[in-house]
Amino acid sequence: MSGSHSRTDKLGLVLRRLRDPGPRSRARLAEELDLSRSAVSALVAELEERGLVRSAGTERGGVGRPGTTLELDGRNVCGLGAEINVNHVATVALDLGGRVVVEHRESLDASRLDAGEVLDRLAALVARTDDEVRAAGAQTIGLGVGVAGLVDRTRDVLTLGPNLGWRDVPVGAELRGRLGAAFPVLIDNEGNLAATAESGPGDPARQDILVIYGEVGLGGGIVADGRLLRGRQGYAGELGHMIVDPGGRRCGCGRIGCWETVCGLRALMDAAADPDDPVRDPALSLDDRLAEIDRRATLGDTRTVAALDQVGGWVGVGAAILTNALNPGSVVLSGYFAGLGPHLRPAMEQRLAAGVVAPHVGGTRVEMSTLGFAAAVRGGALAALETVFEDPTLVARPRGAAVSGGAR
Amino acid sequence: MSGSHSRTDKLGLVLRRLRDPGPRSRARLAEELDLSRSAVSALVAELEERGLVRSAGTERGGVGRPGTTLELDGRNVCGLGAEINVNHVATVALDLGGRVVVEHRESLDASRLDAGEVLDRLAALVARTDDEVRAAGAQTIGLGVGVAGLVDRTRDVLTLGPNLGWRDVPVGAELRGRLGAAFPVLIDNEGNLAATAESGPGDPARQDILVIYGEVGLGGGIVADGRLLRGRQGYAGELGHMIVDPGGRRCGCGRIGCWETVCGLRALMDAAADPDDPVRDPALSLDDRLAEIDRRATLGDTRTVAALDQVGGWVGVGAAILTNALNPGSVVLSGYFAGLGPHLRPAMEQRLAAGVVAPHVGGTRVEMSTLGFAAAVRGGALAALETVFEDPTLVARPRGAAVSGGAR
Repeated sequence: MSGSHSRTDKLGLVLRRLRDPGPRSRARLAEELDLSRSAVSALVAELEERGLVRSAGTERGGVGRPGTTLELDGRNVCGLGAEINVNHVATVALDLGGRVVVEHRESLDASRLDAGEVLDRLAALVARTDDEVRAAGAQTIGLGVGVAGLVDRTRDVLTLGPNLGWRDVPVGAELRGRLGAAFPVLIDNEGNLAATAESGPGDPARQDILVIYGEVGLGGGIVADGRLLRGRQGYAGELGHMIVDPGGRRCGCGRIGCWETVCGLRALMDAAADPDDPVRDPALSLDDRLAEIDRRATLGDTRTVAALDQVGGWVGVGAAILTNALNPGSVVLSGYFAGLGPHLRPAMEQRLAAGVVAPHVGGTRVEMSTLGFAAAVRGGALAALETVFEDPTLVARPRGAAVSGGAR
Repeated sequence: MSGSHSRTDKLGLVLRRLRDPGPRSRARLAEELDLSRSAVSALVAELEERGLVRSAGTERGGVGRPGTTLELDGRNVCGLGAEINVNHVATVALDLGGRVVVEHRESLDASRLDAGEVLDRLAALVARTDDEVRAAGAQTIGLGVGVAGLVDRTRDVLTLGPNLGWRDVPVGAELRGRLGAAFPVLIDNEGNLAATAESGPGDPARQDILVIYGEVGLGGGIVADGRLLRGRQGYAGELGHMIVDPGGRRCGCGRIGCWETVCGLRALMDAAADPDDPVRDPALSLDDRLAEIDRRATLGDTRTVAALDQVGGWVGVGAAILTNALNPGSVVLSGYFAGLGPHLRPAMEQRLAAGVVAPHVGGTRVEMSTLGFAAAVRGGALAALETVFEDPTLVARPRGAAVSGGAR
C-alpha cells in the first residue's frame, strides 16, 4: 500500500473490506491490503474502539494460523434516508451493517401542498427518526434525501420536479434550516438513490445494472462497474423523460410521449380504472390501492390485466432502447413495478426481447426489486453511511470505551 | 506504490504517464508513482533501450533541480487498425505516439461479396500495411479489427452484421488463418473502436462522451469516466438498433424503426436523391458522393437541405433519449456525420435541446469528430497499442541497442 495513504484512508479501507467482500481475519486483511500485521492490528483496535468492528469467531482454512474473524459492527451509528415523493414522505435509519433501525412513511398529496408544507412534514419526520436513533443508543452520521425531480447537486437545488410541481427549490438549505441538524444533509435524485440501494453495497451480481424506478413518475439509474453513472452535471438517469411515444400524451415536463406518460403510476391507474374507482383516490393509501390492483389482476379482471399488459409492454419498449445502448447484466424493476412485477413481466419481457438486437437479449436478465418503494429512501441512508467508510473517525468513541477493543 | 506491482506493471505505468498527462522528468515520475529515483531511472533505461522513451530537453519550474524531460518515442513500434464496413475495407498503422505511419482504404460493396472475399481483400491490405511498417524499420505489435456488426468478443465471432448480411462469421480465426500473423488479432465492434479513438487516449475533455458513428448503419459507443462501457457480453453501444420510429421503415435487422433506418447513410441518400442520381451509385467513391451532397447543400439545393434537416433531426431525437439517460459531457458526431456536420447540426441541436429534460441540455455539448470515417480504424490501432502499455517488454530491444539509454 502506498505511503501516500493517510491513516484515515487506511481505516476506511479496512472497514470496506469487512463490508465487501465480508468478515475476515487480521492476517488476511494485512495480506490483501499490503500492510504489516501490526499496522492492521492498530487500525482494527481503533475501529473496535469506535464500535465499527467486532470479533466473530475463529477463521480456519485461510493463510497461516487460524485467527479471529472480524466483522462489521456499527450498531452505534446510523445513516438516515429520506424521500420526497408525490404520494408520500418517508424516512429510514440504517446502521452501518445495513440493518433497519426505524422507518416511517407518511402519505400526502404533494401536488396539492406547497413546497414549504411538504418540507415541514419531512423535517418533522426526520427529527422524529433521529430522536429514535438516539433513544436506541446510536448516533446519526448524516442524511441522504431523495427527491422526485432533477437535482443540481452543486447547489443542492431541485431544479425541476414535474410531478411535484416544484421548480428551483433549495431543498438542501430548506431542510438544514428546519433541522438545525448536527449532521450533513445531501440531496439527490430518487432514481439515483434507488439505483444505489439496488446495486449494493457490494452485491457482486448487481454491479452492471439498469434500475427503473416506477412511481407517479419514472426514474432510475445506471450502475456500471459498480459505480453510479452521474454524467456531466449529475443529470444521468433521467429515464422518465426519454421520448418513447412521440404521438402520445403530454407529460408533466411539457413534452409529448415521455416514458413516464405510458408507464408511470398515473398511466396505469388511468388504464385500469374509471375516475371514480377507489384505486384512483389519492386520499387512500397507495399500498392499499396497489394491493387492490394486484388482487383484481390475480382474479383475472379483464381491464386490469389489459392495463398491466399495456404498461408492462411500454416498460419493455424503453428497457430495450437502453439495453441496446448499455447491455446491462440486469434490468431491475423497482418502485411500484416490483409489487406488480408478476403481472407486468410477461409483456415487458416480450417487448424487451423483441427490441434488443443482441442475440439472447445480450444476456440481460430482468429482476424484480425486493425493496420496492423503500429503494430510494434506503439509498439515501446508504449514501449517508458512505461518509463513514471515507472517514471512520467521524464516528465518536463511545464514552467509557476502553483504550483498545472495548466496543464489543 | 504497492510491492505487489510487478516490474512489467511499473514499466507500463511509467509509459502511461509519459502519454497522459505527458512529458515529464524522472524526479516527477518518482514522486507521482511513489517510487525511488533510482528505481525510476532503471525503468526509464529499459524503456529507452526498447525505443519507447526518449529525452526531450530540460524541465524547469518543477520540484527540485531541473532534470531531463522524457517523452514517449515508440517510432519503432506500430499498432495496426483495420475495418470491415459495407462500403470499404481500411487499414492504418499508428506508432506508439499515435502518429500515422501508413493508411489505406479500398472501396468495395461488401453486401455483394461473400464474407470470404471481403476477408481476403482485408487480409491482403493488412499484409501490405505490415510490410510497409517493416520497411519503415518498425515492428507491428498487434492488429485491432472493427466490424460493422455485433461481436461476441469471447469467441471472436461476428454474430450478426445486418448491413454486411453476415451471421456467425468467425472473423478472428479467419483473419488469423489468412495472415499467419506473428502478432495478436483482436476483433471489436466498429462503434466501440470509433469511441475509443474519439475519447483519447487521455484527452481530458473527452472522458464522458457519447459517440455516434454514422455509416450505412449507425453505431457508437459510450465512454464514462474514461472507460468504454462494454456491458455484460460486450454488446453495449448498439445504438443503431434503438427503436425511435415505431411506425417507420424495416431495418436490416428485421425490426421496424431502428435509429439507423432514419439516419444511416442509406436514409440520407434515399431522401436526398432519386435512385438514378450518381450520389446513390455504390460503384462511385463514398467520399466523392458525400462531397457532392455537401456541395449541393452549400449551394442551397432544396431537396438536399431538406434531407439533411430530416436526418439531423432524427440524430437529435436519438441523442436526446441517450442524453437523458447518460448526461454526457459531449455528443460526438463521427463517421459520415462529421463531414456533413455543419448541415446536420442546426436540426440536430434543436431536437436535442427539445428532448432533454435537464436545464440547458444538462451541459451536454455537440462536437464534430475530426476523424470521420477514420475513427474506427484508428481505434483498432490504439487498442492494439494498449498491449504495449500493459506490457512494454513485448517490444523487442532493437539489435545493436546499447545496454542503457541507447535507443535515441
